[in-house]
Amino acid sequence: MATGLLEGVIANMPMFRQVARPQLVELARHARVQHVRRGATVCRRGESLNCFFGVAYGLLKLALRANGGEEKVLRLVGAGETFGEALVFRERPNPLEAVALADTMLVVFPSQAVISLFEHDLNFARGLLASLSERMHDLVSEVEASTLLSARQRVATYLESLAAENANGRARLPATKTVIAARLGVTKETFSRLLRELANQGLIEVEKRDILLRDRAGLAAVAQGALHA
Amino acid sequence: MATGLLEGVIANMPMFRQVARPQLVELARHARVQHVRRGATVCRRGESLNCFFGVAYGLLKLALRANGGEEKVLRLVGAGETFGEALVFRERPNPLEAVALADTMLVVFPSQAVISLFEHDLNFARGLLASLSERMHDLVSEVEASTLLSARQRVATYLESLAAENANGRARLPATKTVIAARLGVTKETFSRLLRELANQGLIEVEKRDILLRDRAGLAAVAQGALHA
Repeated sequence: MATGLLEGVIANMPMFRQVARPQLVELARHARVQHVRRGATVCRRGESLNCFFGVAYGLLKLALRANGGEEKVLRLVGAGETFGEALVFRERPNPLEAVALADTMLVVFPSQAVISLFEHDLNFARGLLASLSERMHDLVSEVEASTLLSARQRVATYLESLAAENANGRARLPATKTVIAARLGVTKETFSRLLRELANQGLIEVEKRDILLRDRAGLAAVAQGALHA
Repeated sequence: MATGLLEGVIANMPMFRQVARPQLVELARHARVQHVRRGATVCRRGESLNCFFGVAYGLLKLALRANGGEEKVLRLVGAGETFGEALVFRERPNPLEAVALADTMLVVFPSQAVISLFEHDLNFARGLLASLSERMHDLVSEVEASTLLSARQRVATYLESLAAENANGRARLPATKTVIAARLGVTKETFSRLLRELANQGLIEVEKRDILLRDRAGLAAVAQGALHA
């Protein structure tokens, strides 16, 4: 890919929006593009990575896997988003596997280039810290969901968070029900049953992967654990 | 407390070890001391904090609480450690409650002083990022433990991590069994039963809060899920 094009792709990732032009050019010079097919593994647990990744287009899942093979999807990473930043600043084996859920174009940023950017561009440094702080917040919410919330509360909370991005109360599952179930720590069957129950209560309408939130107050009550089936 | 003394306390916290003397003096000038009694709440969930905290001496628990009152202890914070950094760089309501488990002396760092230090001291900026990255790693492990590991595996993993800090294979529970059970997401009864089972298998010896790891390979096998009771 021409460097000019790559620069444009990078400039559009929220992580790099505040970066000054000369630094952006320098970063693009060190970055490289990686195309991955749907189903391909981008990185494995335990690997040493010397880079972090941005998604130009496509979709990935970041997942933990039990010895027995059971999977916990921790995060779905879509266009414009980045992952693996924390490993740049603390050399540790990668704890998560990343698998492409669609044909995906990645931008690979070598650690050294990112550290250099961090040290020379205060806006980037601030943005990176804010982004990691946000990620930590999400991880705390994840611990909360998996230890203190029922499956029903987790599903309601997740639907709320999806719809929060759309003013009209419509949400679209960003991946298959199997992946979303693994994201929420339930079986696919339980996930389908809980969606049916919420629909029967008149709180949502489900049409394949599209979900209309009909009663947000009611859904919030379910998320809070106040309303039972 | 005299500023000179406070400077010494701060300089001894790993988070500030790399900070240059003049910056340290400036930070100490803005920091303040807070004494909390055992059992007292330092901050509540949902509060806006404009600071982060260091522990000079004592012990705190950072916990999530379900609507029903069930508690998940996420982290124990002891002497020299800090907490709440992430909230300085992303204004969000505090997600965790902090309660003193012993009489504790805190150092309170106002956000503005920390942001200023971050912007003027590259060593501190690097150290802070490394520290948040480590914290993220711990949170990912926490999600893994709570979603993919059995109670038995969690207990074995926890004992291993405690003993890793002591070359002689001795571990001391840093808090009561009730608190450690809430840390591991099990009831106190289950925690006591699992300790007894591991002792009966000859893997550990328990004497109140002191635990001797007799068979680390065996314990590692339990942590991996390879060895069952």
